[in-house]
Amino acid sequence: MNGAECLLRTLLAQGIDLCVMNPGTSEMQFVAALDRVPEMRGVLCLFEGVCSGAADGYARMLDRPAAALFHLGPGLGNGLANLHNARKAHSPVVAIVGEHTTGHLLYDAPLTADIPAFAEPVSGYIETVQCPEDMCEAATRVVRAAFGPPGQVATLIVPADHSWSPAGDSVQPPDGAKPVRKRPDSARISEARRILQSGPRAGLLIDGSAGREHGLDAAGRIAAATGARVFTNRFAARTERGEGLFAPTRIPYFPEPAEEALAGLEHLILVESKPPVSFFGYPGRRSVLAPEGCNLFELASEAEDGAAALEELADGLPPIAPTPVARPELPSGAPLTLEAIGRTIGALLPDGAIISDEMISSAESVWPWLAAPRHSVLAVTGGAIGVGLPLATGAALACPDRKVVALQADGSAMYTIQALWTMARERLDVVTVVLANRSYRILEIEMKRTGGGGGGERSRQMMSIGAPDLDFVKLGEAQGVASTRAATADEFVAQFREAMKERGPRLIEAVLE
Amino acid sequence: MNGAECLLRTLLAQGIDLCVMNPGTSEMQFVAALDRVPEMRGVLCLFEGVCSGAADGYARMLDRPAAALFHLGPGLGNGLANLHNARKAHSPVVAIVGEHTTGHLLYDAPLTADIPAFAEPVSGYIETVQCPEDMCEAATRVVRAAFGPPGQVATLIVPADHSWSPAGDSVQPPDGAKPVRKRPDSARISEARRILQSGPRAGLLIDGSAGREHGLDAAGRIAAATGARVFTNRFAARTERGEGLFAPTRIPYFPEPAEEALAGLEHLILVESKPPVSFFGYPGRRSVLAPEGCNLFELASEAEDGAAALEELADGLPPIAPTPVARPELPSGAPLTLEAIGRTIGALLPDGAIISDEMISSAESVWPWLAAPRHSVLAVTGGAIGVGLPLATGAALACPDRKVVALQADGSAMYTIQALWTMARERLDVVTVVLANRSYRILEIEMKRTGGGGGGERSRQMMSIGAPDLDFVKLGEAQGVASTRAATADEFVAQFREAMKERGPRLIEAVLE
Repeated sequence: MNGAECLLRTLLAQGIDLCVMNPGTSEMQFVAALDRVPEMRGVLCLFEGVCSGAADGYARMLDRPAAALFHLGPGLGNGLANLHNARKAHSPVVAIVGEHTTGHLLYDAPLTADIPAFAEPVSGYIETVQCPEDMCEAATRVVRAAFGPPGQVATLIVPADHSWSPAGDSVQPPDGAKPVRKRPDSARISEARRILQSGPRAGLLIDGSAGREHGLDAAGRIAAATGARVFTNRFAARTERGEGLFAPTRIPYFPEPAEEALAGLEHLILVESKPPVSFFGYPGRRSVLAPEGCNLFELASEAEDGAAALEELADGLPPIAPTPVARPELPSGAPLTLEAIGRTIGALLPDGAIISDEMISSAESVWPWLAAPRHSVLAVTGGAIGVGLPLATGAALACPDRKVVALQADGSAMYTIQALWTMARERLDVVTVVLANRSYRILEIEMKRTGGGGGGERSRQMMSIGAPDLDFVKLGEAQGVASTRAATADEFVAQFREAMKERGPRLIEAVLE
Repeated sequence: MNGAECLLRTLLAQGIDLCVMNPGTSEMQFVAALDRVPEMRGVLCLFEGVCSGAADGYARMLDRPAAALFHLGPGLGNGLANLHNARKAHSPVVAIVGEHTTGHLLYDAPLTADIPAFAEPVSGYIETVQCPEDMCEAATRVVRAAFGPPGQVATLIVPADHSWSPAGDSVQPPDGAKPVRKRPDSARISEARRILQSGPRAGLLIDGSAGREHGLDAAGRIAAATGARVFTNRFAARTERGEGLFAPTRIPYFPEPAEEALAGLEHLILVESKPPVSFFGYPGRRSVLAPEGCNLFELASEAEDGAAALEELADGLPPIAPTPVARPELPSGAPLTLEAIGRTIGALLPDGAIISDEMISSAESVWPWLAAPRHSVLAVTGGAIGVGLPLATGAALACPDRKVVALQADGSAMYTIQALWTMARERLDVVTVVLANRSYRILEIEMKRTGGGGGGERSRQMMSIGAPDLDFVKLGEAQGVASTRAATADEFVAQFREAMKERGPRLIEAVLE
């Protein structure tokens, strides 16, 4: 078999059976090998940022990597923003980048670029295939690197001639050793236990695997038994929420309410979490969100098994019954508000749904209404906007039996609007709700916060995306996604209800006043 | 004044009065300063790849940089593919990247990333502002670096606190020294003169400034007097073409016809050009396009004044009268073919137009028909697709009195389709013709060339962008651009004729069978 087929078979042997791709000439052998390796699913995206964000969403749902195929340095460049989000999410991603033939690299052809340099800002591991016979081992190393722990972006650079040259007859099977997250040692468990005696002056900040069901359950029992407060990251890679689950306090976006939430803490136990800091620095404000003098104690690093540590701490504590949350009443009337959107989704979202949250400035008004249905939330971990629709794409590829709802600000939707086409082509069960406020609303707020002044017409124009207004119904229809517009609560309720009953891609442009 | 205002005023003092931007929180002071520095035009783009490609197009037309503003590492990441094209075009571009406050960089906030690493693959010069008082000098250094020669991408990284802190009361004026391209020395002129005695066994490959009017004129006179053959780069940053201009032979994209074009050469004189190589490497083919044993002689490097060298060589030679080319007959009938599109444009394009050529596989069938009208052509210098619409945007910002026509393949249009919105907002006089063949047609060709095989349904799907078909009329209308569809030659003629008579953005989806 040639190198490309060897690469596909090596990925498969390592459990990777999805490749999201935007190929070019140097990746033709890889594409051709799809015909010979039907177990590998190829999914075409019209822009590389969709590939990288979809690979991230897939990994967040399944805890294993997809492959994402890019065309030389510039193709990878288009994927970098969402690979930055994947890096911050600790998502395992295998990025495969086609390169010129080794002979062609002697010349400065138009597409010649320093691919390792393109990969550097986002990759935890980078390897270039040195010869066709090296393909299998190199790919194996890259997949292992992607798993971490913690998960990371691992990049394999594949010269075109190594793809078309013979690479042997067999694929070396992986050795079966699964990546294992280390459990924190007993000294740290003991210290956490000591800290938790401080009751509400102690907090737990849980993230990563500690924010999933088992970690949440243990944290809930610890909180009930000790009075300690439990917090989660506003921008966690994946949050589990809703019926039957303990509900920690999510640390707000802006530093003032975030500091308020954390006020009074003398100890903060970090469980697979970094110390909490504000998103941006502001004039005259600290970046650190925990109170001054608060003791930060790392129970489990981001590479370790925080859920196991929490379960050890909760060992013997009685189960808790989280307070049931009622679904909100459906709204009606006009104009369409964020509260009405939140109420509608909270009322109608099926249990087991996945929400991709790129609501930006609209998030705080919608989020509280979604507490009842059991669902998973994927957030913008790295602040690189344009990840919402790709995340939804990847989540739907990972979990075809779960409804995916992309709650999407209008400004950020435009960075990777091409994701709608892949949703249509693959008939993914994704309902996109575009929150159309016709502005970079968050910037209007941040302009005031950073003391920029502004207020003039010229600065205002750089934050308004009206004039002309974007028509998301046409943007959806142009790419094969059935699309409607809702300007009142009643319209939104009717359209969202219908979308929840159907399968397949839908878009609702929710026009906000 | 604060650092941001100082930065704007420094850019202005250096002659930069346009900033294409996609700002975020860390750039709010820069945006606010637009209200106080009205001489600086701010143009908002909905995606950073539009900013970078527009800055490139602007520079190619005016030979001076625009500023392009990006939001931290991921924002710059989204601009990299088109900055790669700018790098290969030797376009001067001033990339300004907002960074977290210096204090905030102590923490690993979501958007924290290694911005110099993001800038590295495309930048010839990178500087981070060290303190507010340093703003003016740092910006001055970056602008000078952008000019080269040759032109390059120069990146200025600006921490947010340096933007909002006082930066003194005055802006240091630039010293007025203009960047000068060195003239090649007399030894090289003499050697070129000696080589040109070989007649048709000698060739001139002209690019960069040597491909503009003066260089073309001199090359034409040299060719007439010596019999030497003159060639240009298929992917030149800017080509001048049409009535009254000498027309060199453009080296074709594929290596077989390219080698044929260059066959018989014993000497090739490079004038602001690299040695010609094929775009990709292919199995069993050389990368070098000149015949084996052909002597390559560099008359002028890409940093030198090749036009002056040609004029010196042509000194005393009589003027030539290029053979007049008749405009083609208008086509009629159905279906709509590339020839019909080429004939229509060749017949109706006004003299003085600018063509952004991202036709990819359609180019060879359209190009020959455009020989009559006098126009400038901007090409995909670095092979990073998705530059066509941004280049057209930048060219229209640079030359508001010239008609811009974007000849745009459908697949590549989707990488930066957001450019249409900026065309609509700024009412740019750009007519976009989408050549809709519903596939990555070039890849179907390259699949055969690289011996990939393919031919199966699964590989074919990765090169087809039909199912669902993209509706470019809706994509245009969704972003405020008046859009129509042409499926016959008569429809295309009528729509293109109307578009040439009007001013302002238009889109025609030319549906190819």
